[in-house]
Amino acid sequence: MARIVMKFGGTSVANIERIRQSALHVKREVDAGNEVAVVVSAMAGKTNELVGWCTEAATMHDAREYDAVVASGEQVTAGLMAIVLQEMGIQSRSYAGWQVPIKTDDTHGSARILDVDPANLDERLSSGWVPVVTGFQGISDKGRITTLGRGGSDTSAVAVAAAVKATRCDIYTDVDGVYTTDPRIAPKAKRLERVSFEEMLEMASLGAKVLQTRSVELAMAQGVRMVVRSSFEDPLAGDAPGSKWGQAGTLVCDEEEIMEKQIVSGVTLARAEAKITLRKVKDKPGVAASVFGPLADARIVVDMIVQNISDDGQTTDITFTIPDTEFDRALKVLKSTPELEYESISGSKGGAKISVVGVGMRSHAGVAAAMFRALSEKGINIQLITTSEIKTSVLIDEEYAELAVRALHTYYGLDKSEE
Amino acid sequence: MARIVMKFGGTSVANIERIRQSALHVKREVDAGNEVAVVVSAMAGKTNELVGWCTEAATMHDAREYDAVVASGEQVTAGLMAIVLQEMGIQSRSYAGWQVPIKTDDTHGSARILDVDPANLDERLSSGWVPVVTGFQGISDKGRITTLGRGGSDTSAVAVAAAVKATRCDIYTDVDGVYTTDPRIAPKAKRLERVSFEEMLEMASLGAKVLQTRSVELAMAQGVRMVVRSSFEDPLAGDAPGSKWGQAGTLVCDEEEIMEKQIVSGVTLARAEAKITLRKVKDKPGVAASVFGPLADARIVVDMIVQNISDDGQTTDITFTIPDTEFDRALKVLKSTPELEYESISGSKGGAKISVVGVGMRSHAGVAAAMFRALSEKGINIQLITTSEIKTSVLIDEEYAELAVRALHTYYGLDKSEE
Repeated sequence: MARIVMKFGGTSVANIERIRQSALHVKREVDAGNEVAVVVSAMAGKTNELVGWCTEAATMHDAREYDAVVASGEQVTAGLMAIVLQEMGIQSRSYAGWQVPIKTDDTHGSARILDVDPANLDERLSSGWVPVVTGFQGISDKGRITTLGRGGSDTSAVAVAAAVKATRCDIYTDVDGVYTTDPRIAPKAKRLERVSFEEMLEMASLGAKVLQTRSVELAMAQGVRMVVRSSFEDPLAGDAPGSKWGQAGTLVCDEEEIMEKQIVSGVTLARAEAKITLRKVKDKPGVAASVFGPLADARIVVDMIVQNISDDGQTTDITFTIPDTEFDRALKVLKSTPELEYESISGSKGGAKISVVGVGMRSHAGVAAAMFRALSEKGINIQLITTSEIKTSVLIDEEYAELAVRALHTYYGLDKSEE
Repeated sequence: MARIVMKFGGTSVANIERIRQSALHVKREVDAGNEVAVVVSAMAGKTNELVGWCTEAATMHDAREYDAVVASGEQVTAGLMAIVLQEMGIQSRSYAGWQVPIKTDDTHGSARILDVDPANLDERLSSGWVPVVTGFQGISDKGRITTLGRGGSDTSAVAVAAAVKATRCDIYTDVDGVYTTDPRIAPKAKRLERVSFEEMLEMASLGAKVLQTRSVELAMAQGVRMVVRSSFEDPLAGDAPGSKWGQAGTLVCDEEEIMEKQIVSGVTLARAEAKITLRKVKDKPGVAASVFGPLADARIVVDMIVQNISDDGQTTDITFTIPDTEFDRALKVLKSTPELEYESISGSKGGAKISVVGVGMRSHAGVAAAMFRALSEKGINIQLITTSEIKTSVLIDEEYAELAVRALHTYYGLDKSEE
């Protein structure tokens, strides 16, 4: 017997039929003798409708009232899920964030969870009830409803799982797990059975949109094992009662739980990256701040940053990437920053960032070198390189993006075997 | 300066444009120096949508979860109204029932308000803020959301008005007041400037659908003056700042506040009433209970009841009315009640109940007699008569309903003068 938190996203509760299908997954786990808490998102499209009304009411609207309006979406699905579970003979009760309570700070619209009081949920779980908790929201110490920001429901689920000391937190969505790369680009992409928190973090922030970065960070910090799986699969197939985490989905867990570590676990792609280069910037302390401070003030998110010493040793070249859509604005910001001294500024849109991610890189030399070789063999020019402990990223011309992904996927032996 | 509660119904908050229009009415009162609390319904149609989902989830659904789902509708409009008011430069904050808190019993789906804590609202009102409260809902002592049943928002508004000791409670709806009769039947119907609680109660329960009976009962018990008026009127016309309750709408108040009492204030009509007559029922103690007990058990609502002694003095004739739709079921219930001894049972559908209502009846003799005369002059046959202190009702053939309403309206001098 295990204690499990099951989270269902917007497409998994989009209407009553979908809620019923998702409830069958809950029933399977309950019937297997597990204690189950459920966390739900709003029906797909509902949050956008509510946000739209707030914007129509006032372009600049009070975040406190925005939160009160938008949080109603999960309240609806939590109640409906409880009704459907009851209809299946399962004792169930819905909990809004304030009823748990899930305490947050008062940064309305993007609040952080401070504490999840486990008492109410524990009591239900221990007596065989299934509590259904609204994702995405909590309550501030001022008694106001707060929301966690987009994708916050994953974070809610992990926080609830940590609070009730769940064995794992299952994230049900419309894909059946985390893949080695985007299957639409590389048809030979395969589902990972296990992936480490660190790898998942790199993949989440690099464009694999399965899990919110924030929820993975929290899961890693709290040691909550997550499973990504699909609510669209037959709820009664695949998961043998008593199985450790089922045959379906991808387990996101500590590196230690992964026996045979792949050197590279995945290849990710982020499109539409523009690059800007400042040549011969006067190299003095604070030069990076003088470039990126004004961009941050203008709320332009910078991705890759590369800095090199110039030939003369007195100046430095700085290159960085930003979304294509911010290219013109970023140029304007930099050109109107008088304290910034440089010889020339140039750049272009239409780049693609390709990354290979894997904890195996720590112990295996030559992973990056292999990447450069594989790209070179296909005649793909590398414009920028950045590396972290478990990731190597390159910026290339966007035209070559799919070719590069497929080439690297094959090169690192990630292609699924023909069966 | 006065303290006012303003309640807006579903059509008055049906979309952002309507919310904005309603907010202008609030602004008018605030600009006039009043302290204002607002109570809102859900957007028109929203509650039906939410109820529909609950029914789709399970025909017989848990009332606790129904309440959690359905209460979300008002939460949305309260937040949106607060945003719109803020946009107009008015400090505003939304309050869900549980945040006020509005404490109710735990009869989910049709809860009764036990207490409205005035502290939070008082604090906002005293410092010039406009609190916007969700109608229709509260919280039980178990910390669960409760709803008050259909039309409960009027009751919420009156309860809030009583709690904060408001000067009056304005009910904004899609009609501009209470009329002497339905203007669609009698084009000469006119808006009443004032009507007493007692009269309003009789009219509300007799088919004038402007106010919920329950809210009028509460207003009478708590001495809360109500104004019924339209949110569709120009918010900046009609109401002079500092005016007692404005020139628009109908004031529902204590009889003492009404100087020139009309003998008859209104004529009401309820259609589709069926009548059933039991002849020569054995007249013994408990005979009425043996007729109406089984009907109540079958949840058939009985309206008019008339009992007469028969010629023989040993038996009695009992006639009563019920909705046409319950006619067949009522006959079946009575025929299968063995302890009921009578000679014959008969009845027919298609009756109409016409009532004249007015506190003036108390002091003026002959009001009922005048009614019978007026109907007789038009050749309308009276089938049943019941009277109360301030009301006389007759059952007639439904074919004559409109004719009867217009005739009585003219007869009692209620027609508006030609201008």
